[in-house]
Amino acid sequence: MEESYKSIKIEGKTPNSRVIYLYLNRPSQRNALSREFFTEFPKALSSLDQNPNVNVIVLSGTGDHFCSGIDLKTLSSVTDHSTSTDSGRFSEKFRRDIRFLQDAVTAIERCRKPVIASIRGACIGGGVDIVTACDIRFCSKDAFFSVKEVDLAITADLGTLQRLPAIVGYGNAMELALTGRRFWGLEAKELGLVSRVFGSSYELDQGVRLVAEGIAEKSPLAVTGTKAVLLRSRELTVEQGLDYVATWNSGMLLSDDLKEAMSSNIQKRKPVFAKL
Amino acid sequence: MEESYKSIKIEGKTPNSRVIYLYLNRPSQRNALSREFFTEFPKALSSLDQNPNVNVIVLSGTGDHFCSGIDLKTLSSVTDHSTSTDSGRFSEKFRRDIRFLQDAVTAIERCRKPVIASIRGACIGGGVDIVTACDIRFCSKDAFFSVKEVDLAITADLGTLQRLPAIVGYGNAMELALTGRRFWGLEAKELGLVSRVFGSSYELDQGVRLVAEGIAEKSPLAVTGTKAVLLRSRELTVEQGLDYVATWNSGMLLSDDLKEAMSSNIQKRKPVFAKL
Amino acid sequence: MEESYKSIKIEGKTPNSRVIYLYLNRPSQRNALSREFFTEFPKALSSLDQNPNVNVIVLSGTGDHFCSGIDLKTLSSVTDHSTSTDSGRFSEKFRRDIRFLQDAVTAIERCRKPVIASIRGACIGGGVDIVTACDIRFCSKDAFFSVKEVDLAITADLGTLQRLPAIVGYGNAMELALTGRRFWGLEAKELGLVSRVFGSSYELDQGVRLVAEGIAEKSPLAVTGTKAVLLRSRELTVEQGLDYVATWNSGMLLSDDLKEAMSSNIQKRKPVFAKL
Amino acid sequence: MEESYKSIKIEGKTPNSRVIYLYLNRPSQRNALSREFFTEFPKALSSLDQNPNVNVIVLSGTGDHFCSGIDLKTLSSVTDHSTSTDSGRFSEKFRRDIRFLQDAVTAIERCRKPVIASIRGACIGGGVDIVTACDIRFCSKDAFFSVKEVDLAITADLGTLQRLPAIVGYGNAMELALTGRRFWGLEAKELGLVSRVFGSSYELDQGVRLVAEGIAEKSPLAVTGTKAVLLRSRELTVEQGLDYVATWNSGMLLSDDLKEAMSSNIQKRKPVFAKL
Amino acid sequence: MEESYKSIKIEGKTPNSRVIYLYLNRPSQRNALSREFFTEFPKALSSLDQNPNVNVIVLSGTGDHFCSGIDLKTLSSVTDHSTSTDSGRFSEKFRRDIRFLQDAVTAIERCRKPVIASIRGACIGGGVDIVTACDIRFCSKDAFFSVKEVDLAITADLGTLQRLPAIVGYGNAMELALTGRRFWGLEAKELGLVSRVFGSSYELDQGVRLVAEGIAEKSPLAVTGTKAVLLRSRELTVEQGLDYVATWNSGMLLSDDLKEAMSSNIQKRKPVFAKL
Amino acid sequence: MEESYKSIKIEGKTPNSRVIYLYLNRPSQRNALSREFFTEFPKALSSLDQNPNVNVIVLSGTGDHFCSGIDLKTLSSVTDHSTSTDSGRFSEKFRRDIRFLQDAVTAIERCRKPVIASIRGACIGGGVDIVTACDIRFCSKDAFFSVKEVDLAITADLGTLQRLPAIVGYGNAMELALTGRRFWGLEAKELGLVSRVFGSSYELDQGVRLVAEGIAEKSPLAVTGTKAVLLRSRELTVEQGLDYVATWNSGMLLSDDLKEAMSSNIQKRKPVFAKL
Repeated sequence: MEESYKSIKIEGKTPNSRVIYLYLNRPSQRNALSREFFTEFPKALSSLDQNPNVNVIVLSGTGDHFCSGIDLKTLSSVTDHSTSTDSGRFSEKFRRDIRFLQDAVTAIERCRKPVIASIRGACIGGGVDIVTACDIRFCSKDAFFSVKEVDLAITADLGTLQRLPAIVGYGNAMELALTGRRFWGLEAKELGLVSRVFGSSYELDQGVRLVAEGIAEKSPLAVTGTKAVLLRSRELTVEQGLDYVATWNSGMLLSDDLKEAMSSNIQKRKPVFAKL
Repeated sequence: MEESYKSIKIEGKTPNSRVIYLYLNRPSQRNALSREFFTEFPKALSSLDQNPNVNVIVLSGTGDHFCSGIDLKTLSSVTDHSTSTDSGRFSEKFRRDIRFLQDAVTAIERCRKPVIASIRGACIGGGVDIVTACDIRFCSKDAFFSVKEVDLAITADLGTLQRLPAIVGYGNAMELALTGRRFWGLEAKELGLVSRVFGSSYELDQGVRLVAEGIAEKSPLAVTGTKAVLLRSRELTVEQGLDYVATWNSGMLLSDDLKEAMSSNIQKRKPVFAKL
Repeated sequence: MEESYKSIKIEGKTPNSRVIYLYLNRPSQRNALSREFFTEFPKALSSLDQNPNVNVIVLSGTGDHFCSGIDLKTLSSVTDHSTSTDSGRFSEKFRRDIRFLQDAVTAIERCRKPVIASIRGACIGGGVDIVTACDIRFCSKDAFFSVKEVDLAITADLGTLQRLPAIVGYGNAMELALTGRRFWGLEAKELGLVSRVFGSSYELDQGVRLVAEGIAEKSPLAVTGTKAVLLRSRELTVEQGLDYVATWNSGMLLSDDLKEAMSSNIQKRKPVFAKL
Repeated sequence: MEESYKSIKIEGKTPNSRVIYLYLNRPSQRNALSREFFTEFPKALSSLDQNPNVNVIVLSGTGDHFCSGIDLKTLSSVTDHSTSTDSGRFSEKFRRDIRFLQDAVTAIERCRKPVIASIRGACIGGGVDIVTACDIRFCSKDAFFSVKEVDLAITADLGTLQRLPAIVGYGNAMELALTGRRFWGLEAKELGLVSRVFGSSYELDQGVRLVAEGIAEKSPLAVTGTKAVLLRSRELTVEQGLDYVATWNSGMLLSDDLKEAMSSNIQKRKPVFAKL
Repeated sequence: MEESYKSIKIEGKTPNSRVIYLYLNRPSQRNALSREFFTEFPKALSSLDQNPNVNVIVLSGTGDHFCSGIDLKTLSSVTDHSTSTDSGRFSEKFRRDIRFLQDAVTAIERCRKPVIASIRGACIGGGVDIVTACDIRFCSKDAFFSVKEVDLAITADLGTLQRLPAIVGYGNAMELALTGRRFWGLEAKELGLVSRVFGSSYELDQGVRLVAEGIAEKSPLAVTGTKAVLLRSRELTVEQGLDYVATWNSGMLLSDDLKEAMSSNIQKRKPVFAKL
Repeated sequence: MEESYKSIKIEGKTPNSRVIYLYLNRPSQRNALSREFFTEFPKALSSLDQNPNVNVIVLSGTGDHFCSGIDLKTLSSVTDHSTSTDSGRFSEKFRRDIRFLQDAVTAIERCRKPVIASIRGACIGGGVDIVTACDIRFCSKDAFFSVKEVDLAITADLGTLQRLPAIVGYGNAMELALTGRRFWGLEAKELGLVSRVFGSSYELDQGVRLVAEGIAEKSPLAVTGTKAVLLRSRELTVEQGLDYVATWNSGMLLSDDLKEAMSSNIQKRKPVFAKL
């Protein structure tokens, strides 16, 4: 489908399905994030966002792991001091470079359509940055997680420190970020990091597919509206958020989808919604 | 007690108790929210707020269910396009209408006194909007919940998207709102949506009554102060919230209630507090 | 070590360890918080913050309890009306007094280094204010907690109402603050108030020590950076927080610690970091 | 027109005009704000907001002055200590009373339609609270203003301290509020408190009428949209405000008014817009 | 220089100067903003931002006017209803379209380097959106401005309502946006919309060039740092802004530019700074 | 009075006056800010804040100038790289150092009592940081100002970029900070940076004294309340600010000062207020 990427892979699985599968695709490096990834990933998400045949994106890794974090080569390239001999200019450039990397992760939020993380094996460092930006997270029991940056003497800077507290609570986020300790699927569920944990990789695939297809069959207007309003409300007061959603719905609630939802409901049949 | 309402019912249960019971009262429609509800509910809460004999409000539904969401008739009336032929004017009016509906739910927060949701059976769509605005939530094991709006092709706009993330975490809120899936009492407890889950409807009633009476016997100054400060601090930084509560207590901490609490403590007797 | 304090005690346990132990030290009063505490505690934390030999602070109580809350004498002194006959001036002074008490608790956040609360026995009222300001919380199974202020007819004003919701969720925080009910270690873990609960006091000590030593051996730059960025991001939008951490790392990521972390990683040895 | 009020007066002046005149109407007390005012004023504004024949509201005072501030009787009633012997309960009630008074002033912002303050003579204390909540302010040269509260030993609490800084700058607001000094029309213009200053009372009336009629003939959708978006954007970041107005216009930009504006533009005639 | 654009033009004027001139370039339409503009403008700014030879950008219009606002054709294309027959889908698409247009204006803020607006003749509607996003604004006496959208029955949605209040005060912004009235250079200066007003077009050119060259010769690190910090601080509290700039300078203050500034100062010579 | 300081001087001028004069006191260096200043200044302000005999503080410079900015020696000491060979550790320490310097300026806001800046001669760089933190600013016609940091290749980091925009508008602040240009008293008045400009140094002294004495004779409760509420409201929404001031006044409005203000008003005599 579409372009060819090096660090990622895009795949449809079922004909006529509006679910698309996006893979981190460097299995020999446990899907470590390469320099290329940070260019290709936002490009792919933007293209899927535009694609009217896609309603839901499943993000996972090829091979046994989700993602082992940022590639050490990439890290080295970022921190290579030789690009500038002036420490002020170096910092200025370095800051922009981090902003660029962050931006690739935030592309998940810029995509209007839900991104579901399907996690097996390692989800380490940059992997956690990525999944915390996803909309739904499922994992298998043997998935393991670590906010690993502190062990590389780094203050995590690709989003975990900003997004994790709202997901697992501020106290848990602090503990995980300060210790960098490894935790497995069941604890991830207890913490609220994932919504469901599956007994095996196979069950994970089945479970994710079911949920993804389920969402893909719902009104794309309501699904993208729900994502957009939740994201924006995250940073507004309740009163501002209520105003925002009322304003949103003043133009978007009335739609063919609403009519279809209502009539299919009365007719006890499955609704069919137009593409977005 | 007081006025007569059509969509709700207000009831004292124990003489001299400062706990009042407010019921969604359309059991034949599983307490679906009618147009009348949105007028009567805030009116009732405002009147209970003024009533010095009331310290705590228990909100539940008559019959087997808490609330099945917004009435389809109400929804249709809101979305009736014929009120205006100009799409701009329609949107403007529609926005105000949504704001009006939202306002009825927010009345729970405007009420200074704690509102405890006691949930059995269905708590769907608009029902979730209502309970997320309550101060405490208890349910029976067989209570079931669904952020159902997405299945009606609607971006939920009565408060769930604004209030649920702070209660169950942002990740869980997104998953529940995108899938609209049904979940039961025990999971509601795990998610933090309810504080306690009871084995049966009877036990729920007993449990709620006990807690409600317990709070009703506490200092109403401290109870309403706690609610007010928690609500306001939700949207302030920690430093701003600390300043706010210090300012609050500079005028309100010293009171007859404080003296009564201290002397009853020394005298090992139950304190008795004046009405507010 | 250093100064002598009356209400607290500071102790190193292992030679060459960068973990220091700070005790609430009025065991006969179950470590109730005296007037002196509010002066000594921030002073001690500030001094430990400056001390290059200290990387991590463990906060606990001597004797069987963590803290039974604010001393009734202190409370009386604060609320003593006789200091002013003018109610306006009294409120003004009283407000400043509360701000002063709050400030002692916030000293935990001002300290750049992680503060780990190790909780056994009672953690009541002011004790909860203190632990919610700590970075990590561990407890034993028999630890018990209560947001007790409401039972003293007081709106809690030393930080619990500001910090607890982000830790246990807004709904749980409201329920705990309105009921003032007691809950034990296991529930504290479920709620997310503590990260781990241990079977006994002895195991708690061992567990805390292990984690504290683990963090103390990590890069102090990364550890203090993580704490600082999490604290600041708590009140910023995700976008503002991302900008903040990129700016932070533009000057602080490149360090001897990063080099040491990388080379020790390659050499498969334990890294050794310089003092901060 | 409509109800009869004691403290205010509502008047149309020109047949078919969509401008309505609302007067503070206690000229013998220089339009001091009575207890009644705080009930009648928001009621009147709400009713004008509903009235489709009204597009613009001009607010002024009967007689030679705009408003001399809050009535001393009202102030005394508010501060009457005898209503409660408990200082905590008194503060709680007093706070609600101030909130009630504030709410009457904020009614100006709740009204979707522009409120133009036309100021001659005194505009003192509560008068300044009122005009800072208005959308446009014009005055005559001999109008005089004073943030007078400080001279009554009061911290101004009806809105001036919240709204004035955004209008005249933070530095000017502080100086005016700390000194309580009197300043006249020309300085009010220099400070940005009024948009225009007129040589005489007569010219003020003419000037206000002209501007009010001008706005009343514009698209009521665009006029109320502009007010709403400016008000909300005041408390949002630029990015949040941009999102808000895009969402607003997604439903409200396309309208009969837009068509009428465009076609009248092409036809070089005055547009005529339907009522809102 | 670089690419060829249709709606804009880029021009260097003085060899070795680090000032570049960017023109709105449709003089026959008084530089009305075409569909192409919204693609070309951000592209040009991004490219100038990357260009190490450019330190300062001057933005003006070819011909006698700065900008007469959005092209009516562009407006029509945006509001063309035929692209979708579903009103919900139309609103969703329309909202994205507005966001896209807004984004082109915000490109001025994304550009690290100062953008100076040099305004002669008309600056209407979209022109005001553009200049309020610029860093410095100068105009000639005969420049005229109008927040014109309200006269097209539109709530201005490209940034004026978000940025103007911080520049001219909230009261002035409301008056200008509700009346849409025309005002000239001298009033623009009084309002704070422009920093300086020049007697003629020629003097404007000279004045702008002088200031632009002056800034272009300063340390590019300090200049871009000042812009970045002012922009970010606009939406932070003072305390958050202080923290931000301290963090910024921790990595960027120490630089070759600082050394050069200091030594040139001692040596009483003009400093020469490296490119950024 | 009190302690002896090296970089500053404290002086009462009139017996029984509650106005105190605080001088930057290194006239031979045009009151450049030395390392000592940053310790002594906050200490002095804190002590004056505690002193019940002081109601108002006038801040000015000895000799012909207000302040020529930060001492180059201080700057060098701050930026001395030799304190650490690790660039990460250097940045961490440097950041704290800037925070320490900022804190000395913010001490003006922490002081409950109004601080009036009386400015003659130079007010450059750090001088602007200081006066923007003051509550009222007056100057003589020949005072001159410059946000000079950009010419030292520095992004101003002691508060100007955070506080100036709210005082002179965002547009003017950007222009002044990017150009670093010098401007005089009359323009400072036009910009809103000072509230009044006086023809001579002598008139400035007289004018400042008059205003300072005027404020010093007002109710200290109302004066400090006004400062506190304006400061806090600066970072709250209007609704949050209204809630804050209502809460503030619920405890502090009723006071002996209010009674004295009212009775003196009736008795047509000057009120006399107790110390705070």
